[in-house]
Amino acid sequence: MRNFNENTITDAVLERIAGATDPRIKQVSEALVRHLHAFVREVRPTQKEWEYGIDFLTRTGHMCDDKRQEFILLSDTLGVSMLVDAINHPVPEGATETTVLGPFFVQAAPEEDSGADISGPMEGDPMLVTGSVSTADGKPLAGAVVDVWHSDDDGYYDVQQLDKIGDLAMRARFHTDANGRFHFWSIKPAAYPIPHDGPVGEMLEVQGRHPWRPAHVHFMISAPGFEQLVTHVFVAGDQYLDSDVVFGVKDSLIREFVRHPAGRAPDGRMVDTEYFHLNYDFGLKQVASNARAA
Amino acid sequence: MRNFNENTITDAVLERIAGATDPRIKQVSEALVRHLHAFVREVRPTQKEWEYGIDFLTRTGHMCDDKRQEFILLSDTLGVSMLVDAINHPVPEGATETTVLGPFFVQAAPEEDSGADISGPMEGDPMLVTGSVSTADGKPLAGAVVDVWHSDDDGYYDVQQLDKIGDLAMRARFHTDANGRFHFWSIKPAAYPIPHDGPVGEMLEVQGRHPWRPAHVHFMISAPGFEQLVTHVFVAGDQYLDSDVVFGVKDSLIREFVRHPAGRAPDGRMVDTEYFHLNYDFGLKQVASNARAA
Ligand SMILES: [Fe+2]
Ligand SMILES: [Fe+2]
Repeated sequence: MRNFNENTITDAVLERIAGATDPRIKQVSEALVRHLHAFVREVRPTQKEWEYGIDFLTRTGHMCDDKRQEFILLSDTLGVSMLVDAINHPVPEGATETTVLGPFFVQAAPEEDSGADISGPMEGDPMLVTGSVSTADGKPLAGAVVDVWHSDDDGYYDVQQLDKIGDLAMRARFHTDANGRFHFWSIKPAAYPIPHDGPVGEMLEVQGRHPWRPAHVHFMISAPGFEQLVTHVFVAGDQYLDSDVVFGVKDSLIREFVRHPAGRAPDGRMVDTEYFHLNYDFGLKQVASNARAA
Repeated sequence: MRNFNENTITDAVLERIAGATDPRIKQVSEALVRHLHAFVREVRPTQKEWEYGIDFLTRTGHMCDDKRQEFILLSDTLGVSMLVDAINHPVPEGATETTVLGPFFVQAAPEEDSGADISGPMEGDPMLVTGSVSTADGKPLAGAVVDVWHSDDDGYYDVQQLDKIGDLAMRARFHTDANGRFHFWSIKPAAYPIPHDGPVGEMLEVQGRHPWRPAHVHFMISAPGFEQLVTHVFVAGDQYLDSDVVFGVKDSLIREFVRHPAGRAPDGRMVDTEYFHLNYDFGLKQVASNARAA
């Protein structure tokens, strides 16, 4: 185990990890070494380029804290997150398609009753969201847990401006009623650039890419016996639908956010300005009985 | 640019970075995407495994500071550093082979005159190092800059114990004399485990690997018109020569650290205990006239 050249070193590393006792760790480690070495052999980095790579990864790590996850942004912008999503979520007829989680999900969102206005102190065009949750073959699911979160009309999430707004807003957790339905009020979200003042923004710039995502509302929906659904609903007509920086758009997830004049909304509320109405009916996929533990 | 599945997403990402204006950035980005996606498609990570990967990289970044470079350790232990080294340093007859820099090099090592004892407050078996620097065809190089650094006899570098020893030790910068020679005294280094209390140590453990490197002295040698030489000299007989955790050992870099009884050493110094003597004659490689700027 000495005197390795650029062709023999790969086998040397593989031989070294051949003793891993966990077969999955062994499999992933071996694949990592093979693909990583193939990448290095193809691009033949100079010493300075290798140093840049080390520094890029280090800065990406240093950018991560409880408010910012730069490695998720890197995974998202390199298409890895959507690739992992596609691998893990083949979708049967009737089940809603999935997309990226994104970096702005918060575990402890406030629980709200259906019908609540979750816009908090935020101003913008009122938005009514109505929806239902059912099985892939259309049976309503009562008591499903529906987490929602979205940006304001400048494209910022609550967690990006907590110093200004003081508390979480534009996010909540609902439960579906006996008919599998829920609804809430908020403000219409805008397209936004992912945070691009860090290494990922630097990468996008030199790759000639913009950092924008089309406007959307995030949903995470759970019910016992069904796979947790992580998805968005995108605003039809958004200029970034065909160039989402994280490759997350699917046609089935685009909906008209229908403009209505001031007046009585479908849920009975009187609205004194024009407002938008989004309806989406979600279908959950049953957990396969032979599913590998995720 | 919508509705990607696990096979179409790679082309979508490649298409998105096709606009990079710098050809090298485009080339490296494209190769990165292809190899990274091929890795993901091969191992088919679960969502939880992807999250583990994000967390592993994040913790690796957080471990990095001005004293610790965990991403270099990761590169070293996956064989990437030696692969990059092999790509960049084909060695002509007469030139010394290269090996990894490692994480313990310090830019501003103290300048010392030839003959100095650089052990500072450290105790251990005295070691005399003598050496020469010449061209690959044997012409002595006067005034070459020779950086040396090594561990103590417990396997720790000065920078790992600055709180205890107060100042740099077991490292210095020398200049070769008119005959291309230099020598210095220190203490004999020991084999050591790379820092393994972080994510890299976690990886080594689950891969069934030990974290040890065979005992060695680091050299970095520069002279105008020659490629900077980054290498080690390893102690012959060390038990880890065949399992160096960073794959850095080459036969041509192993030397006997010859044991001598107390008495007058080759440089005239009287030593009252037994001591070790290492001699190594280094050959530098001329800078190629058409070299790509590193
Ligand atoms: Fe979002
Ligand atoms: Fe070392």
